[in-house]
This record gives sequence, structure tokens and C-alpha cells, in this order.
Amino acid sequence: MSNSTGTRIEHDLIGDKEISNEFYYGVQTARAQENFQISGTTLKIYPDFIKAFAQVKKAAAMANAKLGLLDNTLKDYICKACDEVYSGKYNDHFVVDMFQGGAGTSTNMNANEVIANVALELMGKKKGDYDHCHPNNHVNLSQSTNDSYPTAIHIALYNKIEKLLGAYEVLVKSFDKKAEEFKDVIKMGRTQLQDAVPMTLGQEFKGFADSIRDDMEYLRLAQKACLEVNMGATAIGTGINSHPNYTKEIEKTLCEVTGHEYTIAKNLIKATPDQSAYLATSSALKMSATKIAKICNDLRLLSSGPRDGIHEISLPAMQPGSSIMPGKVNPVIPEVVGQVCYYIIGQDGCVVLAAEAGQLQLNVFEPVAAYTLFKSLDMLKNALKTFATLCVDGIQADKETCREYVLKSIGLVTALNPYIGYAKSTEVAKEALEKNLRVSDLVIEKGYLTKEQVEKIIEPESLIAPREKIKF
Amino acid sequence: MSNSTGTRIEHDLIGDKEISNEFYYGVQTARAQENFQISGTTLKIYPDFIKAFAQVKKAAAMANAKLGLLDNTLKDYICKACDEVYSGKYNDHFVVDMFQGGAGTSTNMNANEVIANVALELMGKKKGDYDHCHPNNHVNLSQSTNDSYPTAIHIALYNKIEKLLGAYEVLVKSFDKKAEEFKDVIKMGRTQLQDAVPMTLGQEFKGFADSIRDDMEYLRLAQKACLEVNMGATAIGTGINSHPNYTKEIEKTLCEVTGHEYTIAKNLIKATPDQSAYLATSSALKMSATKIAKICNDLRLLSSGPRDGIHEISLPAMQPGSSIMPGKVNPVIPEVVGQVCYYIIGQDGCVVLAAEAGQLQLNVFEPVAAYTLFKSLDMLKNALKTFATLCVDGIQADKETCREYVLKSIGLVTALNPYIGYAKSTEVAKEALEKNLRVSDLVIEKGYLTKEQVEKIIEPESLIAPREKIKF
Amino acid sequence: MSNSTGTRIEHDLIGDKEISNEFYYGVQTARAQENFQISGTTLKIYPDFIKAFAQVKKAAAMANAKLGLLDNTLKDYICKACDEVYSGKYNDHFVVDMFQGGAGTSTNMNANEVIANVALELMGKKKGDYDHCHPNNHVNLSQSTNDSYPTAIHIALYNKIEKLLGAYEVLVKSFDKKAEEFKDVIKMGRTQLQDAVPMTLGQEFKGFADSIRDDMEYLRLAQKACLEVNMGATAIGTGINSHPNYTKEIEKTLCEVTGHEYTIAKNLIKATPDQSAYLATSSALKMSATKIAKICNDLRLLSSGPRDGIHEISLPAMQPGSSIMPGKVNPVIPEVVGQVCYYIIGQDGCVVLAAEAGQLQLNVFEPVAAYTLFKSLDMLKNALKTFATLCVDGIQADKETCREYVLKSIGLVTALNPYIGYAKSTEVAKEALEKNLRVSDLVIEKGYLTKEQVEKIIEPESLIAPREKIKF
Amino acid sequence: MSNSTGTRIEHDLIGDKEISNEFYYGVQTARAQENFQISGTTLKIYPDFIKAFAQVKKAAAMANAKLGLLDNTLKDYICKACDEVYSGKYNDHFVVDMFQGGAGTSTNMNANEVIANVALELMGKKKGDYDHCHPNNHVNLSQSTNDSYPTAIHIALYNKIEKLLGAYEVLVKSFDKKAEEFKDVIKMGRTQLQDAVPMTLGQEFKGFADSIRDDMEYLRLAQKACLEVNMGATAIGTGINSHPNYTKEIEKTLCEVTGHEYTIAKNLIKATPDQSAYLATSSALKMSATKIAKICNDLRLLSSGPRDGIHEISLPAMQPGSSIMPGKVNPVIPEVVGQVCYYIIGQDGCVVLAAEAGQLQLNVFEPVAAYTLFKSLDMLKNALKTFATLCVDGIQADKETCREYVLKSIGLVTALNPYIGYAKSTEVAKEALEKNLRVSDLVIEKGYLTKEQVEKIIEPESLIAPREKIKF
Repeated sequence: MSNSTGTRIEHDLIGDKEISNEFYYGVQTARAQENFQISGTTLKIYPDFIKAFAQVKKAAAMANAKLGLLDNTLKDYICKACDEVYSGKYNDHFVVDMFQGGAGTSTNMNANEVIANVALELMGKKKGDYDHCHPNNHVNLSQSTNDSYPTAIHIALYNKIEKLLGAYEVLVKSFDKKAEEFKDVIKMGRTQLQDAVPMTLGQEFKGFADSIRDDMEYLRLAQKACLEVNMGATAIGTGINSHPNYTKEIEKTLCEVTGHEYTIAKNLIKATPDQSAYLATSSALKMSATKIAKICNDLRLLSSGPRDGIHEISLPAMQPGSSIMPGKVNPVIPEVVGQVCYYIIGQDGCVVLAAEAGQLQLNVFEPVAAYTLFKSLDMLKNALKTFATLCVDGIQADKETCREYVLKSIGLVTALNPYIGYAKSTEVAKEALEKNLRVSDLVIEKGYLTKEQVEKIIEPESLIAPREKIKF
Repeated sequence: MSNSTGTRIEHDLIGDKEISNEFYYGVQTARAQENFQISGTTLKIYPDFIKAFAQVKKAAAMANAKLGLLDNTLKDYICKACDEVYSGKYNDHFVVDMFQGGAGTSTNMNANEVIANVALELMGKKKGDYDHCHPNNHVNLSQSTNDSYPTAIHIALYNKIEKLLGAYEVLVKSFDKKAEEFKDVIKMGRTQLQDAVPMTLGQEFKGFADSIRDDMEYLRLAQKACLEVNMGATAIGTGINSHPNYTKEIEKTLCEVTGHEYTIAKNLIKATPDQSAYLATSSALKMSATKIAKICNDLRLLSSGPRDGIHEISLPAMQPGSSIMPGKVNPVIPEVVGQVCYYIIGQDGCVVLAAEAGQLQLNVFEPVAAYTLFKSLDMLKNALKTFATLCVDGIQADKETCREYVLKSIGLVTALNPYIGYAKSTEVAKEALEKNLRVSDLVIEKGYLTKEQVEKIIEPESLIAPREKIKF
Repeated sequence: MSNSTGTRIEHDLIGDKEISNEFYYGVQTARAQENFQISGTTLKIYPDFIKAFAQVKKAAAMANAKLGLLDNTLKDYICKACDEVYSGKYNDHFVVDMFQGGAGTSTNMNANEVIANVALELMGKKKGDYDHCHPNNHVNLSQSTNDSYPTAIHIALYNKIEKLLGAYEVLVKSFDKKAEEFKDVIKMGRTQLQDAVPMTLGQEFKGFADSIRDDMEYLRLAQKACLEVNMGATAIGTGINSHPNYTKEIEKTLCEVTGHEYTIAKNLIKATPDQSAYLATSSALKMSATKIAKICNDLRLLSSGPRDGIHEISLPAMQPGSSIMPGKVNPVIPEVVGQVCYYIIGQDGCVVLAAEAGQLQLNVFEPVAAYTLFKSLDMLKNALKTFATLCVDGIQADKETCREYVLKSIGLVTALNPYIGYAKSTEVAKEALEKNLRVSDLVIEKGYLTKEQVEKIIEPESLIAPREKIKF
Repeated sequence: MSNSTGTRIEHDLIGDKEISNEFYYGVQTARAQENFQISGTTLKIYPDFIKAFAQVKKAAAMANAKLGLLDNTLKDYICKACDEVYSGKYNDHFVVDMFQGGAGTSTNMNANEVIANVALELMGKKKGDYDHCHPNNHVNLSQSTNDSYPTAIHIALYNKIEKLLGAYEVLVKSFDKKAEEFKDVIKMGRTQLQDAVPMTLGQEFKGFADSIRDDMEYLRLAQKACLEVNMGATAIGTGINSHPNYTKEIEKTLCEVTGHEYTIAKNLIKATPDQSAYLATSSALKMSATKIAKICNDLRLLSSGPRDGIHEISLPAMQPGSSIMPGKVNPVIPEVVGQVCYYIIGQDGCVVLAAEAGQLQLNVFEPVAAYTLFKSLDMLKNALKTFATLCVDGIQADKETCREYVLKSIGLVTALNPYIGYAKSTEVAKEALEKNLRVSDLVIEKGYLTKEQVEKIIEPESLIAPREKIKF
């Protein structure tokens, strides 16, 4: 049965309000929609968040029924309604702006109201007939915004981090593959942008792979922090109006509904205003963004040129590079990934400010933390997949250029250090540079070493790993 | 004539590509659309930006025609096409993601291609028939992405700041009005959250008004920085491929088309990678956001309670405050405005990173700077209007509470300082607090002053401004 | 033997330089001292860092001797010199500015030169007589700045975090003690600065304790990240000029010398430019600073007044609060701790910028990262100890005020929710507020519950934890 | 007369305290010294700040005497004492930690106490004999910490910015000189690190000069913001305990004493908690640091090599670059300047947090804002002078390399655009790159243009500025 025509009158603390019957949300959502016309980004942009709410409300209904606080028939309707909301079918009814005051009350009520009305329809009742299923008294039973809202955020973060980790795996694999492909390409390493000593391009790409792989650990730690939730806290962590066994039950049902190992915080008063999970997620994102931005920068440096730069590698040409310079191809993918990284780093500042500004028993600024984290997680996921498939996978090495850089470099002199000492090596380096000579020629000319010795010492392939001093 | 069915083949550096005839954009836009699937926020979300591009391209066409580089008929078609694009009619054809590599090339080409195809249709030609009007050779004539893109950003910023200033005016007026309304409400001032000395609530609100008014100056300075643009720079500021008189002409036509006093930077090589206008805008936004967040926090403090807090004022009740605590009304508007402020402060971090990372003759990270600034400007505008109309305008003073705070305070003792000295005042303050007495009673009891003298000295109304020491 | 008079001539790549014999450092330190006159903060301000260098150089000498690269007598002298430097005796000879270019080369050479000259004196040689013990060829043997410098930073960070954790323990204990002391003080909890529901002051302080306790975990994770070092990397991670068994040996000797479980990174090319340990430390500090700043803010709110604020607690009076307002006492300790927190959060921005800006095989900006982290760690340690001893330990509860807040609050109505429903509770709350009545009186007057029932339901002591719905 | 032996007892709100007679400070300073053992950075590290306090106190004494609030003899002693403190003679008696709670009260009292005791000695009285000259009743007369402290900060900031601007002038001059020196060095410009079109090295350096020159405007605006002060505000801006004509008089005497155009804010209640001057200074520093960091990065890129990088320029060799790589010379000065820039950018985050966290009538976090700004200003001044003298002045161009980059570049094809169109130019560019040919050869070979035409078009010297299309 569908009653989507006409309007109904709903009532709250502020007074009466007419709601069109085409909407599953109720009076509190409608007020919030009017109050918060800020960003244009509504809840429905983040379906993961709606799914998380559906899971929280379902788990609560199950726990309430178990404790005899909700009758089983009503519980079943609520659970069924949660399942439908989870499916995405009602996403368009999540209309509140992500930027909102009230510490998430409007979002929580949006979920309570939609679920109540969906349940009402499932029972064959009209929308708004809340005596049979009430947003507060039934759907929100044993809960407060202050526990269900952050719990839903935690769940959404957990799932979004999981998806992001999938993108990390794709990217790491791409770098690993290139590391293997380039394992014999000898090139010069550079420190402080000055020629240093030889290495392989494969070593460099393996470095990228391992560096990014490390970041996954910090993201997993953040994910773990998200597994601690504060259901049962109700308003401030004292669990007012909740059953003594509620936390035990909701812990079980939450795990059952989500399939993940959520635990209820031991100290719910600590947990309720706590921002650790957000800060840990934001920090992990920022750390990794910092490191990925550096790698993007390296790829742009290494592919600089084609004729007036370093150009040890070519990135795949994705699009014409200039509206005025014909033939120009730019490193557009590392550029866009770098921008996503800067964006994420900036967002961390917002999360910190929001976390710091919380007062007493609640942090009222969680909505902006949720918004920025959701956005950062989605964008980084997209960026890393783009990075892997449209850039890294197509990178090609310019072997000739790489090798020639080694042979003409001054840095080769470092290899002579153990044989002629730092002082003489310094002298050779300086003179080679001034006279535009090769280091190998000069050291022989000066009689410090024989041609044979030099050849043995500075053979590039043997300079890319530790080795014993050669005995002559 | 409309040719919106079927497809056409377009060609670029990368090769051929089939484009549906329903689209006014061409091959380069189509590639960019595929390459940058990052944020989901496309150019069309920012119509001000599209308008700015239409103005830049029109001004360029006019300057080119004036210099004999473009024939007048073609110029007229391009100008007409620009006007149509400006009207918003083709916004849906601006499909590239705001997050993009290539320093804005894809955005510039999106504009060039749409304008060229609109012009072609106006002449009765088919889309893609670029011999008659070419995105690069005609629409982009005498330009590069590297001058037209930042110029369009500058124009969009200028206009968005203008709109934001309108919202500031609304908010300042709201505070001014309340300052007048509350000018006789005596209350205690607080420093370090400790009771200090008396003031009026009107003085406090006038302080808010004046504080915000000051911020408008910094925004106007940023706006002024946006008036310097680098048209004529072409690729790197040397003006390669542009006519010697082009900068002179484009300066004139740009002013004509926009109605504002844009000037061409004297040193175009400096101006091309320069990020001053973005940094100045971002700094001004951040400064003001910092101060507005403080004011929001103050309003939340002053309205705390209703019974267990300071509660000198009531904010209008916008919505029920809690899903579990009946009757609770929260300061949701200052809360959401505060979050917008934190968001903006965080965004500044991104703009700085993007600005710093630019290299040599161009800053390739401008797209993310533009995105964050556009978003911050829009959100702050919305937030300030909401703040004024849904919060400040409805604030009410609790005069009784305010006055009682003054009478029972220890801080009144400060007024005695000039008469009995700092040491005795300190002693009185300490004793009054310990013995739970009123300061006025104690100072009389101790015989430091007569009742008459005390009454004259600590009359609250006379403590809210400087006055000469009373002679007894 | 001491030769501290006169001067000696030392030589490097740049040329000759006269060095006073009173100094144990040599030519490269002297040049760096001239080049970097930036911050006035020299290495000697951070003795932990000098100690770390002494340990690195000692471990290297031991490993080199083991591998037959250094003769045992010379090894012994170098080790003895390292021990003396570790003792702090030569701190005044660490004169280079903490702000330096060269990726730490000057710091590393300062250590190499001082150790070499101390060793020379121990053998009875003159300072500068480097044939017998050379800063580069012997003290720096098998090393580069690029491995020994970050390793020394890691060690110094590890030890400084350890000291900081000691301060955390002091502070947590102080909060725990107060939580116990205040466990029966009933008060109102506040959300969004509005009266919410009852709790105990003890619960609130236990929340502070547990919140801070959590942060220690993140600091320990950062500490763990510091345990991975890149000794053996030499210049860029390829281990050029080092013995194939060197990493194995240095891992052992480093553990032996330091007493901690340092491990050599498996991928030294990844590890050499890697900033993970710095980023993790900075993130952990920032996260905790964010949370501690919130707690400081809470304490200032709770102690606001004494007569015109919340004033549920008194902080110990540390000093007169005002130069003009007699008797004013301010929350100076939470204020200074809050400032340290803001400082630390700001510093994180610097660490991120430094980390992101690294290029290719090395991050040249490590000196500023080291400086900011050392400073943040020292300051936070000082601040937390001050916080515990000069503030938390002396906090007193105002029990009467706390209890009265509960009794007069509207928030008590929340407890009636399960008995009369959200709608009626809302109505009661609204009417009580408007008519200035107590909630308990009104609900009886309206006949919703009997006096007996109400008394049972809203007894504050029973509202601070979950409980079953009372059956009437 | 000197009484520097023994001790005296001083008294305040907290009780009695013994003070050694060797110290000019009194009991409140002594308490603050014990309370704030945080950073180890005491007031005396910033003599500009002490001087500013001496000026504020002198101006206040003069205004007070003018209004008949202070007798002329005492005024003269206080003024003389202020002059002596200004001279730096008593700097060692400014012992309070820059990190302090109390919103600067301890710093203000440190100044009041030292000045009082110096004045006492000048009159032949003993230290501590405050009946004759009292820190609060006389030195602090008509003032509060809340006006004199921020005023002293404003003055110190003004003077420090002035000194910093001197360093900017030195640096700009250095870049200007090099721009002139390099005005005929033809090189390739690069956008997105890809070869773009020709320019001169002189143009590039002029760009640096002009970019930095622009920043001076923002610093001057910040300086102007510092000229508005809140003397006369006393505790909260109402001017309690001050004479109605005091603001008028103090405005005059402040200008007289400092020699600068300080004005008293019109709305003192707005001005007292206002952070605009700090935020404006911090923003201007951050903006400029962002741009200078970019320039440092550019110099490092342009000097990369010497053989495997771009190496269009050489930076002066300041010190050996490596402890393991002989002959390596690193760009140590741009590196250290870059680090100072990152440090300053980070510091801005602290200033913003401190500004945002202020509450109601006062911002209690000003001490940390003052500390970070003073430090940033000093360090940037040092860094810019170092940059100019140890780096920019000694930069040399590698003209041959620069010219060869132009001749072999693909980017030259851009110049052909106006003659053969974007499509053919693109084709030529692509083919030249693939076949490793020069663009000029290929375009002739293809018959698009004659050899003569090409030579005329792509002559580098004529590509560095706009020019009319050549008619053939």
C-alpha cells in the first residue's frame, strides 16, 4: 500500500508542520532541511552512511526485542524497514545537509523517521501514523543521537577504509610490477637534487611500493579504532533510559548485523565526546597523502623534459597538454593525485579544529568531521585507482638516458672513497667537474689507481648494493 | 539549426575519438572526462566560473578582432556564443571534474570547445566543423590555458567575494540592530571565563558587529588582488604568439565585458605562476572564519543553560534538540556556522600546499585552489545569511539574569580600586568570596567607605565607560 | 694531554680554514656555523640528540671492527670518545644551528669531528691530526649522513617519547585520583552547552583519565616506528661502500649500545627518504594535544565564575589573576597547557610540509622536522607535569552547586521518557521552562505520574547508569 | 644606591613570598616563574618586546600626569626607569616564560615590578618599598594587562616587521641585480616540468624579485593593523577606572614616545579580544613564506645536477655536501630557507588556533601568538639575509647549457602555431620527438615552411616577448 499523495500534519516541540506524503521523512527532517541550507551536499551523497544507520537501527531493534523492550512483531517490521533502507531504495529521502548543527540529531531523526514510515507502510499503515511505530519511542528506543550517530559514522568509516585499502592494493601491485620490470635499469640516485650514486630504477619503484604498503598499516589501525563504538551511552554515556543488559545485547547484534567485530567502549562517558577514531583516520590519511604527494612529485621530476629535463621515464600520454603549445604532453595524472593529497592534508586541519572545539559531554562538531573524512576517503580511493591504471601501469623507462647519466656523473667517485680516501676523492671530483672530464679518466691519469682497478671498482652493476672492499 | 543526433569523429594529439552530437564539448573535454573521475564535482556546479570563462573568451575575441587577428564576422559569432554560454544555457556541457591535472587545460578546452560549437551552430554549421571556428585557433587565439584559466578564476573569485560581502552586510546589520536593542542591558563581562567587570549586552553585540565589519576590509583587499590578471602572458608570461598590442587591447575589452577595473600585470612572468590572489583570498577567509567561529562560540556560551549555564541570552529555537532528551533546544545555527568556519580554515591549508608546490613557470595545482576557494566562498555566504536570519535576528536578552550577575559578582570590587587601592581591594574580594558576602556590604562593614560612597561608586550603569574619579 | 691554545688549519672541499684549538669541532662544523645563523637554537639545546649520535657512532665503530674494517685499538678510542660525548661533557662543542641545509650533513660532521678530536686527545695526539683518527674515514666509516643522521633522530625521538610517557602517567594518575575523590558528587552533564542529564563529577574525571590514557597507545606506536632505522643505507639505501654483512652487525651493536630493539629496515631505499616515523610521532602528538586542549577547555568551563559562571569546581589559585581586578584568580595552568597544545598542533603542519617536500632519494628537510618534534616533545612533557601537579591535584568540587544544578534542571525530564513517552515529556519540559517550574512538580500536577512514582524515577543517584524500567 | 644583597618579603593575593634583593622583579613575577616552566624561552629572548613595554608604561605615566592622576615627580622617575629598561640594562630581570597562562598578566606584572623597583632605586628608596612607587597603583595606573600587554605586542610586531622589511629589500635587490646580469641568457621555460617555450634567465629572476616585492605590501598592511591599539580599554574595553580623557592623552603620548602613528581603536570592546593584527601578520608571513619556499625550490631545480639534472645555474658552494660522497656540493642555503618557510607556515596554524579559542571579552591565548610571531619574524629576517648574501649574490648562469636546451627543444614548435596552425604543429612535435629530430629540420623537410621562414620565426631572441605575426 502506497500513500504518496496529499499531505499530513506532523508535530514536534516547535509546533505543527505539513509534510507531503511523497516523503518518508517527517517533521524534524523537514525542519532541518530548512535550517541547514549550507553546502548542498545531503546525506544521500554518502550511501555508506545511510547503510550504516540502517544497520545501527536494526541492531538496536533486535537488542530491544531481546530485552523485552520492543514486541517481536514491531521489531520485525523495523528490521525489514532497515533492510529496505540499507538496499538504497530510500536514499532520496535522506535530504538533510551534511553540514548541520545539533551534533547529528537531524541526521539521526532523518533515519528514525524514514525507517518508521517505511515500517508503517509495511504494516499497512499510513505514513505519520506514529502510534504504531514511532521514530523516537520505537526506532530510536534505548538510543540517543549521541550514541547512534557516532556509531553509524564509525561503521561508515570502517567500510570506506576497507574500500580504500582495496585501491591501495591495486596501486602497490602496479608499483611492484614496474619494480620487477625495471630491475636491471641502472640509473643515478639523487640526493638534494644533486647527482649521488647509482641505483636501479627497479629499486626506486620498489621503494615507492613499500612506502605505500607501510601506510596501509596506519589505515588498519584507524579502522580498528572505528570498531570501538558507544552504543548504550544514550545521552552522555551514563546510559540513562537504557536497560542494564543493553550494551551486552547491542554489542552482539551489531556484530551480527554488520559482520564485523564491533565492541562497546568500556568507559562510555569517555567514549561519547571522544574523537580518537576520527583523528586516527584523519592522521592516517594525512600521513599517507603526504607520502603519496612526494611520489607524484618524484614521478613528475623523473619524467621532466622530454628534452630539457631529467626524463628517465615516460608517463603515458593521456591527453594533449596545452591549448597553445602543440605536442606538449603533461603528467596530468600525478598532478591530479597530488591535488587530492593536498586536499586531504587540508581537511585534516578541519578535523582537528572540530575535535578540539568539542565541549564537556559531547562533541557537537562531528558532522563536519564525518563530511570531510567521507569525502577524503572517497576521493583518495578514486585517485589511487586512477593513479595505478592511467599512470603507473603505463610508465616506460628510457634505459639509454638512465645509463648515460651514471657514466658521466661525478658521483661515481664515491665508489673510490674506500680505495683512495675521502680527501683525494674530493680533489678528483672537483677537478673533473672544473675540467669537464670523466672521473674514471682523471683518477687513472693521476695515477691513484690503474685502469683495471678503476673499471672493477666503478662498474655500475656492482655499485647498487653493499660489497666487500676489493683486494688488489 | 540543431544537429544533436548521431556522432562525430574528433582528433587530437592522442588520436581519433567519437563524440555524440548531443554534446557541445569536443575531444579534449571527452578525454579529460575519462581521465579525471575523482570528486564528482564538475565545472557546472560553479556557474560563476563558466560565466567568467565566457567573459574572458569574449574579451579575447574582441581584442583579436581589434588587432586584425580575427575577422569581424567570426568575432561576432564567438561573442554571441560567449553570451549564450554566459546565460547558463550550456552549463550542462561543462562536464570536466574540478579536480584535474594539466593546470586547467581541460577546463579551458571545455570552454573553447563548447564556445566553438555554439558559434558553429549559430553560423549554421555542424558541431565539429572546426575549419569555420576552431577551439584553439580561433576561440583560444592569443591565449593559453596559462593566462585564460587563472584570469577566469580571478573573475569568478571577484564576483563570489562580492556576493559574500553582501552576506556580511546582512549579518553586520543584524548584530548592529541587536546592539541597539540591548544597549541598556547591564551584564558582567568575563575574561578568562572568570567574572570581570560590568558592561552592557549592547556593547558586546556592537563588538561582534564591528569585529565582522573589519573583516570586510581584508576581503576587499583580496578582491583587489583578483583584479590583476595575466591575459597576454600566453604560455609562460613572455607573450609568445601574441600581438605586441594585445595586452593593451585585452585590458580594455576585459573591463568593457565585465564592468570591473581589471588590469594586466606589469610583469607577466611573475604573474603567471603567482598565487597571491588565491593566498590573499584564502587568508582573508581564514582570518574571518577564525573570528566568526569565536563569535559563534560566545553565543553558545552566553545562551548555555537554560538553568545550569550562563544563559544571559536565548537563541531562537529552530528544531527539537535531542532524540532522547525532550524539550532540549540546542544552538544549532551557531554550531553549523562554526563548522563552516572550521571547514574554511582547513581549506586554507590546501591552498597553501597547492601554492607552495608550484614549480618554475606555472603552478599546476591551481584547480584545487580554485575548487576550495569557490566552495569556501559559497558555503560562507550561505552560512552567514543563515546565521543572521535564523539566529541573530531572534536573539532575546534575559535582563534579570544579566543584572543579578552584576550585583552578586566579586568583580565589582575593581571599581573600588581607585578609592581604596589594589591591596585592600584584593583583601575585600578574597574575604567576600570566602564568606559568601556581597562586596558592597563588606567594604562598608570594614569602614573603608561609607554606604553612600559605595553606592555612588559601584552603580553599574556608571561602570561601563571611563569616568573621572569621584571626589568625596 | 690538552692542546686548547692557538689555532690549527683544517682543509675541506672549499679550502683551508683556521680553527681555534679550544674547539673540538673542525672545519666543516665551522663553515656550517657561519652559514646557518638562523634560529639561535644550536644542537647543544638537545642533549638527547647528542647522546643519540654518540650511540650511533659507537655502534658503527663496533660493527666496523667486527668486520675487520677498523683496527681494534682505534675502535676502542672511538668508543671511549663516544662515551665521553654521551656523558654531556662536550655538549658545548655542538654549535651548529638546528636549522640547517644539507639534510643534516653539518650535524653529522659536527659529531664526527668532535668524536675524532676527542679520540685523538685520548691517544695523546693533537686535535686535527686526522691521519690517526679521521672524521670521515674512521668515525663516519660505513656511514653517510643519510643513514646516521635519521638514525640518531629516531633514537632521540624514542627516548623523548619515553620521557613524555612518564609525564602522561603522572597526569593520568592525578585524574584517576580525582575521579575516585569525586565519585559521589552528583552533577548535570551538558551537551552542546545545554543542560542534559545527571552524572557524577567522578565519572567526568574518569573520562578525562581514560581519554588521555588512550593517547599513550598512539605514542607507543610512534615509538615503535622509531625503532626501524636505516643504518647501512649509506648514501641512498644501496649501501654503497659498505660491507655486505654490515647491516647485520650494526643491527646487533645498535641494540647492544642503546639497550632497545632497533631493527634495520628491510628496504633501505624505501627507508632512506621515508618520513613515517616523524609523521607518526607528529600525528600522535597532534591527536593527543587536540584532546588535552579540549580537557583544559572543559576545566576552564567547569571552574568559570566564581559567581557568574558554572563553577562546579575550583582550580588551585596559583597567582593573582589581574593587574587591575583585585581578587581575580584565573585558570592559568589549563591556559598555558592549552597554548602548548595549540603550538604542537601547529608544528604538525611544519612536519607535514617538510615530509611532503622531500625529493627522490632523500628528504632534505629533516632538520626542521627533528627540531619541531624535539621541541614539541619537551614542551608537552613539561606542560603535562605542570598540569598534574599545579592544577589537577588541587582541584576541589563545589558539591552544593553541583547538586542544585541537577534538581532545578529541565533535563531531569529525560528520565520520564520511558514512562510517559517523548511527546508528553516534551510538553512538560516546555511548560516548566516557560512557567519557571520544576519538572517534578509539573508532571505530578498534570497527573501524568504520582508523587511517589516521580520521586522514584528521578532520584539523581539512580540516573547515572542504565537501569531497568521501574514497574509500578 | 644599590641594595642587591639580602632578601625582602613581598605580598600578594596568594600570600607572602621572599624575594632576593638582586632581582628587580617582585612577587608576581616570582610566582609566574615557578608556575610556568614550559619552554625555557623567557621574555629576555625578545628585547624588542621589553622595549615595547617600556614605551607603553612611559606613555601611560605621561598621560596620567597630564590628567593629574600621577604627580609629576613620580611620573619623571617612572619615565626615567622606563628609559633605562628600554636601554636593555634590565633585560635579565625579565624572567617569565613566554609560554604562560593568565593572558599576559605575568609579563605585564614583570614589567610593572621591574620598572617600579628601578624607579624606587632612582629615588633612593629600597626595592619593594612600593608605597613610593607601586607596580599596580602607579606603574600600571589607568591600565590593565588586557590593554597594555596587547599594545606592547603590537609595538613589538610593528618594529619587527620593519626590520624584516629591511631584509626583504636586501633580497629583492639581490634578485634585481641578477635579473640584470642574466638579461641576455636565453633558456627554456618549463610548465608542469615539461619543456615549454623560450625566455631569459633574467626574466625568471626578475619574476622572483617582483614576486617577493609584492609580499612587502601585505606585510605593510599587517604593520598598519598593528598601529591600532586598545590602550584605555583597561579590563574589558569599557575603560573602567580610567579617566574620560585618558584615551585621547595616551594616543598622543604613545605617538610621542614611539615616533609612530598609533591610534586608539574606536570600539575598545571589539578591540580588546580582537586578534586581527596577529592574524594579519601571520597571514602575511605565511603567504610570503609559501612563495619564497617555491622560489627556493625553483633554485634547487635549476641548479640540479651538476651532470644529471637541469643545471642551468650554479649556486655558490658553501660547504662540502656529503660525509660520504666526495665533491658533492648541495644547495644548502635554499634548503635552510625553505625549512624556515615551512616552519612559519606551521606556526600560522598555532596563531589561528589561539585566535579562535579566545572567549568572550578577552583572548587568553595571546602569549603563544606573540611567541610564534616574534619567532617567525626573527627567523625569516635571518633567513632572507642569509639567502641574499650567501646564495643569490653568488649565483652563476651556465649560458651554454641554457642555449642548447632551447635549440634542441620540442617546445620551439609553439612559435610555428600562428603560421601552420595547431593541428600541423602538433603533428610535427610528435614526429620530431619520436624520430629524435629537431623541430626546425622537420618542418622544412615536410615543406610547411621554407628554411628562411623557419629561421626567422624561431630565432630564440625574438620569442621572449610578444611580436606581430611575420608577413612572408
